[in-house]
Amino acid sequence: MAHDNISTVIQLKYGKSRKLFGNVAQIIDEAEGDLTSVEVIKETHEYTTREIIVKTDDEDHRDEIVHKIKEIDDLELLDAKDETFDLHIDGKIEVQSRLNVENHETLSRVYTPDVARVSKAIDNDPSEAMKYTIKHNTVAIVTDSSALLGLGEVEPKAGLPVMEGKAMLFKQMADIDAFPICLDVHDTEEIIQAVKAIAPSFGGINLEDIAGPQCFEVEQRLEEELDIPVFHDDQHGTAVVLMAGLLNALKVADKKLEDCKVVVTGIGAAGIACSKMLMHAGVGNLIGVDKDGALVEGKDYDNDRWNWYAEHTNPNKEEGELSDVIEDADVFIGVSAPNILKEEDVKTMADNPIVFAMANPTPEIPPEDAAPHVKVMATGRSDYPNQINNVLCFPGLFRGILDANATEVPMEMKMAAAEAIASVAEEDGIHEEYIIPDVFNDKVVPQIRDAIIEAASGSGRSPKE
Amino acid sequence: MAHDNISTVIQLKYGKSRKLFGNVAQIIDEAEGDLTSVEVIKETHEYTTREIIVKTDDEDHRDEIVHKIKEIDDLELLDAKDETFDLHIDGKIEVQSRLNVENHETLSRVYTPDVARVSKAIDNDPSEAMKYTIKHNTVAIVTDSSALLGLGEVEPKAGLPVMEGKAMLFKQMADIDAFPICLDVHDTEEIIQAVKAIAPSFGGINLEDIAGPQCFEVEQRLEEELDIPVFHDDQHGTAVVLMAGLLNALKVADKKLEDCKVVVTGIGAAGIACSKMLMHAGVGNLIGVDKDGALVEGKDYDNDRWNWYAEHTNPNKEEGELSDVIEDADVFIGVSAPNILKEEDVKTMADNPIVFAMANPTPEIPPEDAAPHVKVMATGRSDYPNQINNVLCFPGLFRGILDANATEVPMEMKMAAAEAIASVAEEDGIHEEYIIPDVFNDKVVPQIRDAIIEAASGSGRSPKE
Repeated sequence: MAHDNISTVIQLKYGKSRKLFGNVAQIIDEAEGDLTSVEVIKETHEYTTREIIVKTDDEDHRDEIVHKIKEIDDLELLDAKDETFDLHIDGKIEVQSRLNVENHETLSRVYTPDVARVSKAIDNDPSEAMKYTIKHNTVAIVTDSSALLGLGEVEPKAGLPVMEGKAMLFKQMADIDAFPICLDVHDTEEIIQAVKAIAPSFGGINLEDIAGPQCFEVEQRLEEELDIPVFHDDQHGTAVVLMAGLLNALKVADKKLEDCKVVVTGIGAAGIACSKMLMHAGVGNLIGVDKDGALVEGKDYDNDRWNWYAEHTNPNKEEGELSDVIEDADVFIGVSAPNILKEEDVKTMADNPIVFAMANPTPEIPPEDAAPHVKVMATGRSDYPNQINNVLCFPGLFRGILDANATEVPMEMKMAAAEAIASVAEEDGIHEEYIIPDVFNDKVVPQIRDAIIEAASGSGRSPKE
Repeated sequence: MAHDNISTVIQLKYGKSRKLFGNVAQIIDEAEGDLTSVEVIKETHEYTTREIIVKTDDEDHRDEIVHKIKEIDDLELLDAKDETFDLHIDGKIEVQSRLNVENHETLSRVYTPDVARVSKAIDNDPSEAMKYTIKHNTVAIVTDSSALLGLGEVEPKAGLPVMEGKAMLFKQMADIDAFPICLDVHDTEEIIQAVKAIAPSFGGINLEDIAGPQCFEVEQRLEEELDIPVFHDDQHGTAVVLMAGLLNALKVADKKLEDCKVVVTGIGAAGIACSKMLMHAGVGNLIGVDKDGALVEGKDYDNDRWNWYAEHTNPNKEEGELSDVIEDADVFIGVSAPNILKEEDVKTMADNPIVFAMANPTPEIPPEDAAPHVKVMATGRSDYPNQINNVLCFPGLFRGILDANATEVPMEMKMAAAEAIASVAEEDGIHEEYIIPDVFNDKVVPQIRDAIIEAASGSGRSPKE
């Protein structure tokens, strides 16, 4: 079964005297579809209407199966809906009122004229907004849809389903009110100005799927110019969850971070954030690899970030391709492209190597190929053990920074979040196939939250307002 | 009882053997407070704890009563909370997920990786965003807090309680998901750019409490440059509800709009919008009055809008103060300042005059003073008959334009909305004290909606996407 399979909801109607269902099931089996659910929707004396769910590899595969079912005599195919699209109809979130306005008295308190007293109180003391408005619990999920998932740059509205999905998870997992802001601008300065303009409504900004190199300046400038925390999830969320998994993987492999040789592939937004966090945590021998091979000091790259990277990593100035520098590496971190790490490469790594192949949906090496040669293997996928998924970080992290009334997210807070995630798995007992908790583990959010609050108070920073 | 009274929730604890409650009630009575609710919160063998609600004229008046209650021997005042502030704690709206994500399968459909298929479909055909995202039902309530209620320009965050209140009403009355966007910019161009930048998330823009003259250009430019409808409620919401009330007032007074002399005071955003709608509806003899007196063609005003106004109104070139031009007027429309219309002025109006004194919270003339001399009197207040309240318009109007997939709100739609509101009251039977439905009348939203949809199809405009 493919990872990115399609689920189709099909309604069938046929005479009860006819034994047609076996026929349907057989067609699906023969075409290598997967029948995962059957339900009776309606039953009369003569007819039965059933709803079945069929998983297929892709849309062509689905169309082939639907076509074959349609050809069965005396059977009526009433409907065939793509389950994913069906779940998206009308959108996935809504804005709810927290109390019902039932009479003129309440209306006059929550709206004009009496609401003016609350507005006046906030005008006199702006910090009161955190008490009397949604600001304290509201996060803007901001994207310009320039690097949406694996799709690259898309139409601004096309970012909405992703941001809505994220808002659902913010609410369900951490009771945070998050609202999707899809921007119709791409220029760095325009993105910054738009976010600054709308900031008064929000208690935090989650930047999402903004392409590099704009994402770096956008984040940095907003951090400096806003009094609420700003967090680019693609950079730091990935780094936090990677670090959480790695902390436990090192324990399982009995290695120490400061002794490890670590190779990172994909020196973009996520790769740089992961690398900075690794260095902060003590990695000395870190080598970044991108399309020009290993980044080495002294070469002049077009990309300023790569020049910075080369100056601060690769102490032994190792040159060459991935297959060259991977030799004797303890840890491979991939945030790059499918199938760039070969089985032969893994064989040249140090003993008990750790491989995090996080490219989505196709990892840097098929887990099956790496498995025989590694101590710990992690991917970004939910159908293999050890899924490195940002969903483990952002709900708890924002719950923590909102509750701490934090105004920024320094490295200590990110490390605290990573350690909190790691500790949830460790409490359960870690092993090769369990270095990181499941995204639905409900201990994750409260533990990150508590760790963030402790880190915030420990840092001696006082809230800006 | 003052209109802008304060409601205080007080908790008292005292021994059951003591008859102290009469004492409390007496103190409130003597201090001219109003005890509106009593509830037993807890009762033990020895003690009783009661929660009472006391209305007072203002905060000093409340403090005086609370102080006197505190002085009662053997009675403990546990708590005294301002009911309005209490209702605002943590904010008044929240973002809810429309479905629960309970397993990896659903997670992969509403979020990565499968959400990418929905994003791709929208990228291929942007109109699909109306089907598969929140856009179709989501309105941004945008303010720069430059003309907030009667407060004038306030701190951006201070606009949040008002916009949240409006969002509550959007949801409760018309099932619209509205989100408050308080802008930290005031410059016309910056407001326009910020709203354009965030527009992809929204199906409509409700501009609110933006000061003149910026509000005119902001609205006009956004109308031209966005493909979703834009509506400045302070201008057009006021005009629509005024027109609804006036249509019925004219029937009650047996007057025809085209024969009426109409005087409007306050030639700002609301006054100009009301005047344009009156002219569209057939008023020929319309005179605008502001601080320089009646606006007359030929004078050179600093304010361009006034020059335009003077050229297009006052056909008989009447000059002077309000007290001069009000003579023989059939209709007075006040969107200006407290107590500027005198009882003597009303006496000089035509027979069966109509007075709409909509300044808030204190009208242009006390209703008690005008009553003996007018046929129909309306104000903006809920404690007198005939309340002209924007809440009657915006929920139904946006329900209609969203359902019609309209891309603008032309005058015919606004007139259709006014007529729909008027017809709800007319169906009930109109008279001097009932020219406009109550804001909680649940026929209003569906009737406006239907009227807007009819107007949209009648206009022959096709949706922009």
